[in-house]
Amino acid sequence: MKVSSVPKDVVEPSKRTKRVLPVIDFLVRIVAAISTLGSALSMGTARETLPFRTQFVKFRAVFEDLPTFVFFVLSNSIVCAYLLLSLALSFFHIVSSSALKSRILMVLLDTIMFGLLTMGAAAAAAIVFLAHRGNPSANWFPICQQYNYFCQRISGSVIGSFMAVILFMILILLSAISISKH
Amino acid sequence: MKVSSVPKDVVEPSKRTKRVLPVIDFLVRIVAAISTLGSALSMGTARETLPFRTQFVKFRAVFEDLPTFVFFVLSNSIVCAYLLLSLALSFFHIVSSSALKSRILMVLLDTIMFGLLTMGAAAAAAIVFLAHRGNPSANWFPICQQYNYFCQRISGSVIGSFMAVILFMILILLSAISISKH
Repeated sequence: MKVSSVPKDVVEPSKRTKRVLPVIDFLVRIVAAISTLGSALSMGTARETLPFRTQFVKFRAVFEDLPTFVFFVLSNSIVCAYLLLSLALSFFHIVSSSALKSRILMVLLDTIMFGLLTMGAAAAAAIVFLAHRGNPSANWFPICQQYNYFCQRISGSVIGSFMAVILFMILILLSAISISKH
Repeated sequence: MKVSSVPKDVVEPSKRTKRVLPVIDFLVRIVAAISTLGSALSMGTARETLPFRTQFVKFRAVFEDLPTFVFFVLSNSIVCAYLLLSLALSFFHIVSSSALKSRILMVLLDTIMFGLLTMGAAAAAAIVFLAHRGNPSANWFPICQQYNYFCQRISGSVIGSFMAVILFMILILLSAISISKH
């Protein structure tokens, strides 16, 4: 009796994780989608007009001024759309736990999207850092000294995007564990 | 006879890929290590002194002037060291094709290093783009107009790093396929 109970104990947790992992995957995808959407919206609507102006120049900062921020909004939007579409495949994995090829496809797509998101977040972070600190060697002035509110918005936006980057790492790890359970 | 030959055909390529995949993994790691090492060295030794000077100012560009480039050199060096160390684990996977937990650990480490490398490359790319084109809205001057040779070096360095990023995507995909063969 003791002998027969041992394999039962070993098999059951494995079966349970096989069920639980796709559900965690599904939930993480939703959180990551919200995170990237928030980042894209927060950056896309960031604008500040200073309360003074000359006859010809209006002092205004919008995200389109910097191509890197346009790339950031684009990459976050693309990744958000991908995450929403991938919910269908993730749901399919909850229902049919034996699908293998679709899981490998998902690892590939997740890795590509992880790369795209990380690129957008890191590039924007480099520019935000420059906006805050400037660079005396290159004679680049820290624009945050004027555009304080604008800088707060874009900093928060980049932080949200980095949260999604960490969630993507978890997604890839979850997929690898799921595949190993076959 | 025909019936017995079918499963044989199905099994053999699977066994062969089980052997071939770790070897490809090993070779890709070597190429990626060379690529990151080259990028780190190329960026780390990039310096240019302009042929004119004033009494007090010497016009000189080195990578340490920009914190993003320091991060780039650091991230490429760390990833290169990781790739060299991971060769041992990769070799172990060639010898023992049944190791599963170590493969999952490798996917996790690869994903983290992929993220680190992508961050360094994308952040440096954002600054290199700025150095080439400048930004009139933020009054950031394109320093490449003066430091031509310096800019060529850092651009090449970033391209090398992005090659390693693509190789990392292949590594993660290879690991996922390897794990699925169990």
